[in-house]
Amino acid sequence: MYPKSINNLIEAFKYFPGVGEKSAERMAFHVLGMEEIQTDFLASSIKNAKSKIKRCKICNHITEEDTCNICSDISRNKDYLCVVEDPKTVISIEKLGIFNGYYHVLNGLIETLDGVNPEDIRLDKLIKRIEDEKFKEIIIAVKPCLEGEMTALYINNVLSGMNVVVSRLASGIPMGADMEYIDPITFEASFDNRKKIS
Amino acid sequence: MYPKSINNLIEAFKYFPGVGEKSAERMAFHVLGMEEIQTDFLASSIKNAKSKIKRCKICNHITEEDTCNICSDISRNKDYLCVVEDPKTVISIEKLGIFNGYYHVLNGLIETLDGVNPEDIRLDKLIKRIEDEKFKEIIIAVKPCLEGEMTALYINNVLSGMNVVVSRLASGIPMGADMEYIDPITFEASFDNRKKIS
Repeated sequence: MYPKSINNLIEAFKYFPGVGEKSAERMAFHVLGMEEIQTDFLASSIKNAKSKIKRCKICNHITEEDTCNICSDISRNKDYLCVVEDPKTVISIEKLGIFNGYYHVLNGLIETLDGVNPEDIRLDKLIKRIEDEKFKEIIIAVKPCLEGEMTALYINNVLSGMNVVVSRLASGIPMGADMEYIDPITFEASFDNRKKIS
Repeated sequence: MYPKSINNLIEAFKYFPGVGEKSAERMAFHVLGMEEIQTDFLASSIKNAKSKIKRCKICNHITEEDTCNICSDISRNKDYLCVVEDPKTVISIEKLGIFNGYYHVLNGLIETLDGVNPEDIRLDKLIKRIEDEKFKEIIIAVKPCLEGEMTALYINNVLSGMNVVVSRLASGIPMGADMEYIDPITFEASFDNRKKIS
């Protein structure tokens, strides 16, 4: 139905998650309406991002250099290491400006049911780094879900013999949330983790 | 926060309608996870579509040639011309396989409030074509909305002196729709256009 170059574009947009035939068509027509300077920028940005971005050799965060801007920053606090599951979480935490330690980015979470084991997410590299760099506290900041819990417990177990505190971000009711809509597991966590009002 | 090449990619994705910061970030990270063969295909498809697609010199539909595949098809019925507001509608109707005439694609609809006048959507080109090609019926298949009605009425007025039938797609209740959720204007149209059960 479409000219070949449009068909190709529609197929290419379907690479994105949640983009089906209709959305891909809409995006393709939107491209036709863009200025050429915009389509050139879009196309070259895709190629550049793919070719220039690699993983930091220390922490596995995304970077265009060998080491990322965070690992290269010697002014940060060497006592704290925050373990996250993906580079996006690093950015989210950095945007808050509340944490001044270093990060370690896993390649996902342990999912034994789906055959993702500790070696698949390179936990060995994390353990080695903790041994070498003598952090005082490892803050595990992965999603509160079954896979997140398993990953956190595994890390805690492996580090149990070492002189390092392992902590986990608090789970509970989000600030400002309507109590009526809190799911039962979060509710239970909020009871289990309740704090004395001092 | 992000390396420059990711920032650029996020900005570029924000060109798309409905894509804000968060969606653009998600798309950018998805690009990083693609194979290089996919990112190359995506980037080149964008450039190709923009550079190769032009408008058919007869009907204004999208094409890679001077005339589109529909205008070039001499086996179609020369009595019928279907007037649509954009190339997407041509594709939608062609997918149905119920119409075998020719098309004419306007550059949008008349919107007097927004200063879009008949000359802006090149109605002169349509009128000239109808005069030249001696169609028997002009089927106006634009959206049933204020702008669609104005455009249809304008075309009908201009053609009133000519020996040609001007028709409009029926408005009414969509097949299978729940009567409870029909908006009042559609309901009214369905009464006005009621048909005798023969």
